[in-house]
Amino acid sequence: MKARVTVTLKPGVLDPQGRAIHHALNGLGFDGVEGVRQGKVIELDLADGTPTAAIEDMARKLLANTVIETFRVETL
Amino acid sequence: MKARVTVTLKPGVLDPQGRAIHHALNGLGFDGVEGVRQGKVIELDLADGTPTAAIEDMARKLLANTVIETFRVETL
Repeated sequence: MKARVTVTLKPGVLDPQGRAIHHALNGLGFDGVEGVRQGKVIELDLADGTPTAAIEDMARKLLANTVIETFRVETL
Repeated sequence: MKARVTVTLKPGVLDPQGRAIHHALNGLGFDGVEGVRQGKVIELDLADGTPTAAIEDMARKLLANTVIETFRVETL
């Protein structure tokens, strides 16, 4: 089975990478960009029947820094 | 309007970060992990009415290295 964990910074946490992308997009002439936030997406190939709770556990223990990041689990 | 660009490595491209995560998950005792691929997700706040073609252009010119990465655009 496949699962996807999307990890993004919590609102209010400074996102220097997002700022850099925003600045670069403006520099390339893309108008109308009001904000940019960058996160991670981790695609997992798992044994069939792996419970969502186990995937959330992986996210809490390794994939996300839960102090400054939130995560979302999707099973595909 | 909001859009999300998901950038992932093309199949066959070596993913050392994914390998490192896979190794760490096994080390933490998570069995049943058969493969891990890591990518980026960029969330954009855009002026209303920004066409998808412009977002794809941003992805081609900046957000993704189209030699080794593919991207997917979602308008939210």
